[in-house]
Amino acid sequence: MSLPMQTSFALQTRGPGLYEITAQVADWIAGQGDGLLTLLVQHTSCSLLIQENADPDVRRDLQAFFRRLVPDADDPSMAYLTHTLEGPDDMPAHIKAALLPVSLQIPVRNGQMRLGSWQGIYLFEHRHRPHRRDVAAHFA
Amino acid sequence: MSLPMQTSFALQTRGPGLYEITAQVADWIAGQGDGLLTLLVQHTSCSLLIQENADPDVRRDLQAFFRRLVPDADDPSMAYLTHTLEGPDDMPAHIKAALLPVSLQIPVRNGQMRLGSWQGIYLFEHRHRPHRRDVAAHFA
Amino acid sequence: MSLPMQTSFALQTRGPGLYEITAQVADWIAGQGDGLLTLLVQHTSCSLLIQENADPDVRRDLQAFFRRLVPDADDPSMAYLTHTLEGPDDMPAHIKAALLPVSLQIPVRNGQMRLGSWQGIYLFEHRHRPHRRDVAAHFA
Repeated sequence: MSLPMQTSFALQTRGPGLYEITAQVADWIAGQGDGLLTLLVQHTSCSLLIQENADPDVRRDLQAFFRRLVPDADDPSMAYLTHTLEGPDDMPAHIKAALLPVSLQIPVRNGQMRLGSWQGIYLFEHRHRPHRRDVAAHFA
Repeated sequence: MSLPMQTSFALQTRGPGLYEITAQVADWIAGQGDGLLTLLVQHTSCSLLIQENADPDVRRDLQAFFRRLVPDADDPSMAYLTHTLEGPDDMPAHIKAALLPVSLQIPVRNGQMRLGSWQGIYLFEHRHRPHRRDVAAHFA
Repeated sequence: MSLPMQTSFALQTRGPGLYEITAQVADWIAGQGDGLLTLLVQHTSCSLLIQENADPDVRRDLQAFFRRLVPDADDPSMAYLTHTLEGPDDMPAHIKAALLPVSLQIPVRNGQMRLGSWQGIYLFEHRHRPHRRDVAAHFA
């Protein structure tokens, strides 16, 4: 295949949390040579994150931190929010989407992402209800 | 034109807030093929952000959140700050510039950015006074 | 040398703080033409940051802010954390690594990074003990 290569990864979320996508991204670039991989999540209420892939407690604690930093709009501390028509989790999701990465860039060597041993790639869903999420991918 | 292409976008801000630059970026890559667009803001007191482009309330609430998370240096909760010579909004602007993106990467297909339907590109100004801001752009 | 070029930068940290790596990155791309530089830190408990390179107070205040935003796990406000086996600074380091950039992209023209006059590149160490840190670099 000639460069640049592009694709999309679609996934279905089932509430807030981190969904690992490392394997499907690795599969897509396997067999390619050296290059740069870019991922962009095409939404403003979820994020992409490179984080520890070993202990699931890390993901649980990350979620707990961000839930405390940006509580739902029905929490008294968030009474200043005005964009609340789409539910108490909507505006906080936009805020988390500003605080956390919308895109990731990963150097690739011999068809393998140069991630550290403990790094995995995650989609971080911030909305309560299930959503279909699309991630645009580019490799060159 | 042969790749890589580079340019700069300049804009004038008039106080804190989100300034949309989607249209001028789209114009620059229109007619190009597939590739990767990179934007880098050449300052340490403002940010680049991909965010919802529909309801202006979202931008207002984002600003309100970050003003509360990182109040000006004359707020009692920020008394620990030492870099205050350039005004009460300067060090908080550096902190927001650390928390929010300094660069953005967007895959391009057939000369069009692969943004989601609700995604726009914004320069997020953190300083109170008007500033001229430069954004370096690269496409390849 | 033919593109893409890849390398790694290794550095030894001696506790939390910002360690400037601008010069060694600039040396690596000196003499190259136009392109895009990508840096990725291969760890989940430190970050990469473009920040003000003039007044060291800015770096001290940045650190002070993040220490307050994400206190160590032995602080009563962080009692909800469960991943504490690796020390009170470990989970907070993962949280800061989520909040701050894991990768940076910088357009290069004529072998020079297009940084603003006050921008430097830093590795931001979040762990208390000394660590060896690797940064993957890609230029194309």
